[in-house]
Amino acid sequence: MGLLDRRFEGLESSYLFSEIASRARRFAKAHPEREIISLGVGDLALPLAPSVCEALVLASREQGEPGGFKGYGPYEGRAFLREALASDYARSGAELSSEEIFINDGAKNALFSLLSLFEPGITVLIPDPVYPAYLDANILAGNRAGFIEGGPENGYLPSPPESAAASLVYLCSPGNPTGAVYDADGLKAWVSWALERDAVIIFDSAYRSFIRECGLPKSIYEIEGAKECAIEIGSFSKSAGFTGLRCGWAVFPMALEREGVSLNKLWRQRIAVSENGAPYVVQRAALASLEEPGASECARAADFYLNSARRIAAALKSAGISCTGGLNSPYVWLECPAGLSSWELFDMLLERAGVVCTPGAGFGRRGEGRCRLSAFAKAEDCERALGRMLEVLNRL
Amino acid sequence: MGLLDRRFEGLESSYLFSEIASRARRFAKAHPEREIISLGVGDLALPLAPSVCEALVLASREQGEPGGFKGYGPYEGRAFLREALASDYARSGAELSSEEIFINDGAKNALFSLLSLFEPGITVLIPDPVYPAYLDANILAGNRAGFIEGGPENGYLPSPPESAAASLVYLCSPGNPTGAVYDADGLKAWVSWALERDAVIIFDSAYRSFIRECGLPKSIYEIEGAKECAIEIGSFSKSAGFTGLRCGWAVFPMALEREGVSLNKLWRQRIAVSENGAPYVVQRAALASLEEPGASECARAADFYLNSARRIAAALKSAGISCTGGLNSPYVWLECPAGLSSWELFDMLLERAGVVCTPGAGFGRRGEGRCRLSAFAKAEDCERALGRMLEVLNRL
Repeated sequence: MGLLDRRFEGLESSYLFSEIASRARRFAKAHPEREIISLGVGDLALPLAPSVCEALVLASREQGEPGGFKGYGPYEGRAFLREALASDYARSGAELSSEEIFINDGAKNALFSLLSLFEPGITVLIPDPVYPAYLDANILAGNRAGFIEGGPENGYLPSPPESAAASLVYLCSPGNPTGAVYDADGLKAWVSWALERDAVIIFDSAYRSFIRECGLPKSIYEIEGAKECAIEIGSFSKSAGFTGLRCGWAVFPMALEREGVSLNKLWRQRIAVSENGAPYVVQRAALASLEEPGASECARAADFYLNSARRIAAALKSAGISCTGGLNSPYVWLECPAGLSSWELFDMLLERAGVVCTPGAGFGRRGEGRCRLSAFAKAEDCERALGRMLEVLNRL
Repeated sequence: MGLLDRRFEGLESSYLFSEIASRARRFAKAHPEREIISLGVGDLALPLAPSVCEALVLASREQGEPGGFKGYGPYEGRAFLREALASDYARSGAELSSEEIFINDGAKNALFSLLSLFEPGITVLIPDPVYPAYLDANILAGNRAGFIEGGPENGYLPSPPESAAASLVYLCSPGNPTGAVYDADGLKAWVSWALERDAVIIFDSAYRSFIRECGLPKSIYEIEGAKECAIEIGSFSKSAGFTGLRCGWAVFPMALEREGVSLNKLWRQRIAVSENGAPYVVQRAALASLEEPGASECARAADFYLNSARRIAAALKSAGISCTGGLNSPYVWLECPAGLSSWELFDMLLERAGVVCTPGAGFGRRGEGRCRLSAFAKAEDCERALGRMLEVLNRL
């Protein structure tokens, strides 16, 4: 037996966003005179909302006061934040108790760690294209991945495959990178499929705060039966600007049992061994993003990004470029013109327009020939990037 | 094949500190009139040091300003903090580059996650008694655990076993729960042992800031050859009061290679899949704890706890109770008098003295018949607890 886990050899040599950053750095170094605007990685232009920042500052100040200092907290997160999230879910029609919600330091880590609940080697279904960390996490877990394909033919919203047997399936809605959002019927089909097979759905709702169309589910628990078959992963990164503060949550409903074991109990055991909870001051800031006036301030920030996304989508369409997303999502997903591959378009936009996008190939085989633009930039940067991109694209 | 990972069944049904908390809660509920003082879980009485708190507040305030907001950071942590840690190591004679240091959200998570670098099923050596999460993490990793026993016969500092073959060995110095500290010769023996066998040492230095005796190593990298065989885990929890803020680090030296693979590179791949770095504001506060005047303020807090530990140890000894620790460590490790088991003494101290300790049995088989007292309480609480405990112990 060897010492090192050979599964690392199955990973792509560099993680998508590292590769993008390193190409952009190389270009900037070679062309110090050029201004580069990033519509690539999903990081944010707006600072923390005033009330959220104020809550963070206040909680931070308390940590220096004898009566205000908070040390180790519950592994599952502070009750005040779990209760506020349960109330937030209730407002959109999903009834959850605070014991079903676990606070963590961000969705990325939770998406990785939850795989440790399952026997290594299980079969998982992963959308293609999708956030690449799902696949990498499953490679490291030793699981067998099958793909559910999204494309123009199904609006990037794969339906359950009749035949495929799988223990886990990932759904991301609103989708990253596609911006596509499942409606209630779409999710109902997946819940039925999972219940019939005793499969577990991992529902990634990181972009839920961008849903503006009435009737589109923000949580899978708005669908009957989902509590018996779904884990939901949520994040404050995009809803409240926490990309640098790090806070998210995972929902393990009490009704979710497999092989006679409660997954809620299993997750509780798992985090007792590996976690000490998210930082108290960050949890206090997260709370402020759920309560007024913080919630409205955060919603206005989301509106700002959505407005940019709509402008990007409209401009591309007017230039004859097909794209989806940008409606209930901060992402615009475009078809590369002139038969360009996604990394070819990436390099062209970087070199000729000084704009960083995310090449679709990084999101899976079906992402090839497409690129993702993020609307998280400053309004003026977004406008300038758009102007420079259109100049390049119109010349093709 | 099943769905759920059966290795969870190998865990103790409740994690030590959860069990302690639940017994204390039950007692408090049954006896609302009694004051309970905790010398149990290693949480802290003092608030954040003024300069550390100020840095946290300042960084938090910046997050609400357009130019000050920080989003996604490097997975491995901010360069300013990695560089400050490298300088800190250099001051005690360990030369490390900032590329060898990875910031994380606390030692507990890092100790768990680093096992994913290794083939499941390897043999590991774990001190007994020791921090129980080492064993639980290895149970979940599917590894085979052997034990290196500590006791009065070796001052709770096990030497390398001549015969035992193992891929990994854990060392914790100053030790939790025993407070025992390896000297340079003790660590040299372990480094030679590991180099001879291509084994990897996981050196937990979470309590390094309590070392006051000259010449005792604060880092395993003060020992020649350690960079070829050791990973070190560090924490701001006890050195700077970060139990609630969550920040630590892991060192993967460039020279640490196995099977032709750099563990530094492997860890970099691992965190790219699962992490997004520790919160920026927390990293800024951590930096302040390494720079003046924060470093001196934090050292004074450690002195305060050390002073309490010495008082506890002296009082116990004057009552005829054997104990170790309390010198370069915030923990006092005592022998249960009158043949009591460790949970018996726990219950007795809780019920008769209203004091919570940590039963030694929770730290391993060799912890039976012993208990850990933590000096992290307020001075006046510590005094009162000590008085009440001595009353009970003197009556035995």
